[in-house]
Amino acid sequence: MKRNVLKFGGTSVSSLEKIKGIAGYLKDRVRQGEQLVVVVSAMGKTTDELLEQVSTITQSPNEQDLAVLLTTGEQQTISYLSIILNDLAVKSKPLTGYQAGIETVGHHLKSKISKINTKLFEQLFETYDVLIVAGFQGFNTDNEITTLGRGGSDTTAVALAAAIQCPCEIYTDVAGVYSTDPRIYPNAKRLQVVSYEEMMEMSALGSGVLVSRSVEIAKNFNIPIYLGKTLSDEKGTWVMSTVEMIEKKAVTGVAIDQDMIHVTLNYPENDIHLLDRVFIHLEQEEVNVDMISQITNNEGLQLSFTMKDTEEYQIQKIFSHLKEDYPELYFKIENQFAKVSVIGSGMRDMTGVASKVFRTLIESDIPFYQVTTSEISISYVVDIENGEKAVQLLCKSFEL
Amino acid sequence: MKRNVLKFGGTSVSSLEKIKGIAGYLKDRVRQGEQLVVVVSAMGKTTDELLEQVSTITQSPNEQDLAVLLTTGEQQTISYLSIILNDLAVKSKPLTGYQAGIETVGHHLKSKISKINTKLFEQLFETYDVLIVAGFQGFNTDNEITTLGRGGSDTTAVALAAAIQCPCEIYTDVAGVYSTDPRIYPNAKRLQVVSYEEMMEMSALGSGVLVSRSVEIAKNFNIPIYLGKTLSDEKGTWVMSTVEMIEKKAVTGVAIDQDMIHVTLNYPENDIHLLDRVFIHLEQEEVNVDMISQITNNEGLQLSFTMKDTEEYQIQKIFSHLKEDYPELYFKIENQFAKVSVIGSGMRDMTGVASKVFRTLIESDIPFYQVTTSEISISYVVDIENGEKAVQLLCKSFEL
Repeated sequence: MKRNVLKFGGTSVSSLEKIKGIAGYLKDRVRQGEQLVVVVSAMGKTTDELLEQVSTITQSPNEQDLAVLLTTGEQQTISYLSIILNDLAVKSKPLTGYQAGIETVGHHLKSKISKINTKLFEQLFETYDVLIVAGFQGFNTDNEITTLGRGGSDTTAVALAAAIQCPCEIYTDVAGVYSTDPRIYPNAKRLQVVSYEEMMEMSALGSGVLVSRSVEIAKNFNIPIYLGKTLSDEKGTWVMSTVEMIEKKAVTGVAIDQDMIHVTLNYPENDIHLLDRVFIHLEQEEVNVDMISQITNNEGLQLSFTMKDTEEYQIQKIFSHLKEDYPELYFKIENQFAKVSVIGSGMRDMTGVASKVFRTLIESDIPFYQVTTSEISISYVVDIENGEKAVQLLCKSFEL
Repeated sequence: MKRNVLKFGGTSVSSLEKIKGIAGYLKDRVRQGEQLVVVVSAMGKTTDELLEQVSTITQSPNEQDLAVLLTTGEQQTISYLSIILNDLAVKSKPLTGYQAGIETVGHHLKSKISKINTKLFEQLFETYDVLIVAGFQGFNTDNEITTLGRGGSDTTAVALAAAIQCPCEIYTDVAGVYSTDPRIYPNAKRLQVVSYEEMMEMSALGSGVLVSRSVEIAKNFNIPIYLGKTLSDEKGTWVMSTVEMIEKKAVTGVAIDQDMIHVTLNYPENDIHLLDRVFIHLEQEEVNVDMISQITNNEGLQLSFTMKDTEEYQIQKIFSHLKEDYPELYFKIENQFAKVSVIGSGMRDMTGVASKVFRTLIESDIPFYQVTTSEISISYVVDIENGEKAVQLLCKSFEL
């Protein structure tokens, strides 16, 4: 029996009408002899609405409690989809994260999948043709409900595909991956295939299609991912291993992350323990920082880094806490930055990419503040108002 | 440590403001040294709203799927309450039916509690002072989510009290039990105490305060139940064993159930197998019938019974099914009946109650169609338009 994992995001399931459309599509695929695991997100803006309710209660909700609340969103979607499928005489069963055996470790709201009960799916496929799993959620060894953090439903889907050993199709309202965001550069081309590594850079750097954790799992288990448009014949993008790719380009895409903040920390003494504590706290709060730069001299120590503005609350918390022990600690959080990244798995074999990027930005008078490079990417922090312009210029330079 | 189970119904938790009020009250009780299990229903009309959504999809949703959907309502309430309590520095933990170890048997939407993990609560009380349990839900041995049917949250509360061996306080927007519905008979008196048996008759007969399953559990485990008004100083009613009651009155209350239907079945032959099949189907569909009367003579067989109109759908289904094998089967469903019941645990020792009821109805020209009696009650089926009048007259007759 051919098996596939399919994932539909929040926009694709934002109304009962849309869910009915998806159910019809799933029925066709089952008729063609497939057995499907379907992962769904919460309907439309449900999660945001729940968070808004909570914000009227407190700014720092208990994370265990919040996970219990947020997971109701996906639980409603799996029920509706299963009600519709069973009504269409498709043997279907809804499964919450717990019921699907998705075991997790870590923070309640940012858990990582540690184990999946593969046998369970084998057993259930003896009775059902479609198993509908609530994305974004799991449970820990204390039997507590957890969520997987941003992009968690994708992670659920890819992890299930890895467990079942089948391809994973991820459907959103955009067909596949473009060389850059078409809203910024209308000539952007859709890529037929990208490597795991390229996709990971794009995810981590804010192209917003697929979180890098998901791609990492797919890479580790060599699961091909198809990124397509919900209920559309438009061709999407396959994400797979480089070895299976015939042609490598130096630069495949340009990504932009518009929601960056720049954090600077000053302390009059060169206190190594303070630095140590900063990084321990960042780890405990699971704040992802990048582009770190550190200066220590006679005037004391200065640390600066960039990060997503979604984690600003945690940063404020950490610094307020540190100020109790280090009253002379000074910190500054600046908003309004964007990170622009040029990505390509061919970059590691080809030269001249970095200098071409520099030249493009300098010739257009776009100042940049920090630069980081990886094997297959180069990233620049620029002012947010220059972000889109930089993307457009770089796409032209690299003929994307 | 003094322990108590408290239950708050849907109207008491219909807004975040109301939940905050309850949280404040719980905090006070924890400060006074109590440890609490708090059972909550879905907020306000949430369950009805979910059912309305489903009704736009199908009239016969898969029951397993529907249970998964409906349980999200209570899951949201437990999260909100726990977020608020933790924010007030009360150590609190939300538990879904599964997490609370509430094992059930039977239909997905009408399950019965079969087991509760008592040790779990002992363990959790080592860390938390308030354990918030989603009412109305559980899970079966196939690890599927189930609901407990009408009044299910009360059953959850009483069953937990039985497991923990502590009293159970059930709070609604009405303080306690009245001799009859005060909306029908404004002079109705609030009862300070009623016996389990009286309460069971009142529940089963539609006084609407507490479903009889809950009272039955309380009686079996000798758990006193307090029925009070949410966040009010008004005295409520204790439900307890008769042996603890000092004074027994012949008649304690008059109950009315306005939503009765009368079902008549005719078949030209006196076919015992048909009757057998009818009752097997009724049992399978878990339809509660009462006031059964059966006539068999030369003209064949006639069976009639009364039941709640909420189960009319199941009855239609059963008869449509039977008609396939018995084409000559004729059945009729009549609406617009009310059942009026006179209840009192003293009735078993005192005479004259039945004749007094007869006289009251006959003198007022209220026709009645069927009569049933139990040890502590007498019930009459009347036309729905005579229901309230009968209650008022009977309350006057018995000076309630």
